[in-house]
Amino acid sequence: MSLYSPRLTRLIDALRRLPGVGPKSAQRMAFHLLDRDRDAARLLATALDDALSGIARCPDCRMFKEDDECRYCGPARRQSGQLCVVEGPADLVAIEQGTPFRGRYFVLMGRLSPLDGMGPDELGLPRLAETLGEGDVQELIIATNPTVEGEATAYYLAEMAKSRGIRVTRIAHGVPMGGELEYVDGGTLSHALSGRQPV
Amino acid sequence: MSLYSPRLTRLIDALRRLPGVGPKSAQRMAFHLLDRDRDAARLLATALDDALSGIARCPDCRMFKEDDECRYCGPARRQSGQLCVVEGPADLVAIEQGTPFRGRYFVLMGRLSPLDGMGPDELGLPRLAETLGEGDVQELIIATNPTVEGEATAYYLAEMAKSRGIRVTRIAHGVPMGGELEYVDGGTLSHALSGRQPV
Ligand SMILES: [Zn+2]
Ligand SMILES: [Zn+2]
Repeated sequence: MSLYSPRLTRLIDALRRLPGVGPKSAQRMAFHLLDRDRDAARLLATALDDALSGIARCPDCRMFKEDDECRYCGPARRQSGQLCVVEGPADLVAIEQGTPFRGRYFVLMGRLSPLDGMGPDELGLPRLAETLGEGDVQELIIATNPTVEGEATAYYLAEMAKSRGIRVTRIAHGVPMGGELEYVDGGTLSHALSGRQPV
Repeated sequence: MSLYSPRLTRLIDALRRLPGVGPKSAQRMAFHLLDRDRDAARLLATALDDALSGIARCPDCRMFKEDDECRYCGPARRQSGQLCVVEGPADLVAIEQGTPFRGRYFVLMGRLSPLDGMGPDELGLPRLAETLGEGDVQELIIATNPTVEGEATAYYLAEMAKSRGIRVTRIAHGVPMGGELEYVDGGTLSHALSGRQPV
């Protein structure tokens, strides 16, 4: 006889696939949902279904998108002439929330990491190359994290833009080395952005 | 314009209702599910639906139950003459997994805590009183946590059983004071169970 009944086992197993959730937490979550907060369980099931059916990637910036128009790729943003490259959606949100930047973005959904199978194709760099070739981008702002892989990615991106004669900047390292961009407060991020240096 | 699009906002909000999940973790989970593991999102949505529709409480032991027959309330367990009272489902599972005990259980789904509105009715004690009145229980084993509220609950339970002439034992405190039963290893738990003392 297995430890839990089948449905409970499946629920605990499914919760374990959430990042940062181990076996004990998953069990605790399952019991909490079943025992104390069935409304939350219902909400979560519905939210997951809605998200799966209604959230896609913008083909241009690769951010999540659920409306016809991407909220980060409109004409006003294009006119800014600036395109900011970030590693993940949380970084984009951190910049939008904490700084006055309102240019375009490109979300890598990762960073160059050959050992993990993350190469230029996986990061959508062919699409970024197309965008850079369209002539609207006057400045590529690189906001990858200041980690070893983030720096390698930044170097690669800088070469891509320079070869097309586009100005390249890197946000200033007010962000502590080894830190994660998404955990930095808006003031520091604003400072880092305005203190950006040509690469 | 809100920080996230509506569906994404709803997903993040729903994930935040899981115990131990703050805003940053919820965001990270949502991005992970959407970006890297849509299968996990689908599995979780289905598992939640199945659990909500198929898992109920056993009216006798108050444990989660999804089959017609409760796996903890069969005739063999009744014949043991032992009934072990625990605070939560995880405690029941810890005892089943870590010890040879195969008697009946009663899951309080909490502990006496008047300030939190947890009184005898909320813990199902009227149902426990019925069970104790049926004559099958020769020993009530109290396995509430060794916390202040757990001890108060134990005292209350002991009085209930003693007034009916039923032997009452408390599992030995190999469990460290202030600790949580569900985090103790099976060996310690077995020891605590076999070293139980009359109350
Ligand atoms: Zn876009
Ligand atoms: Zn039962």
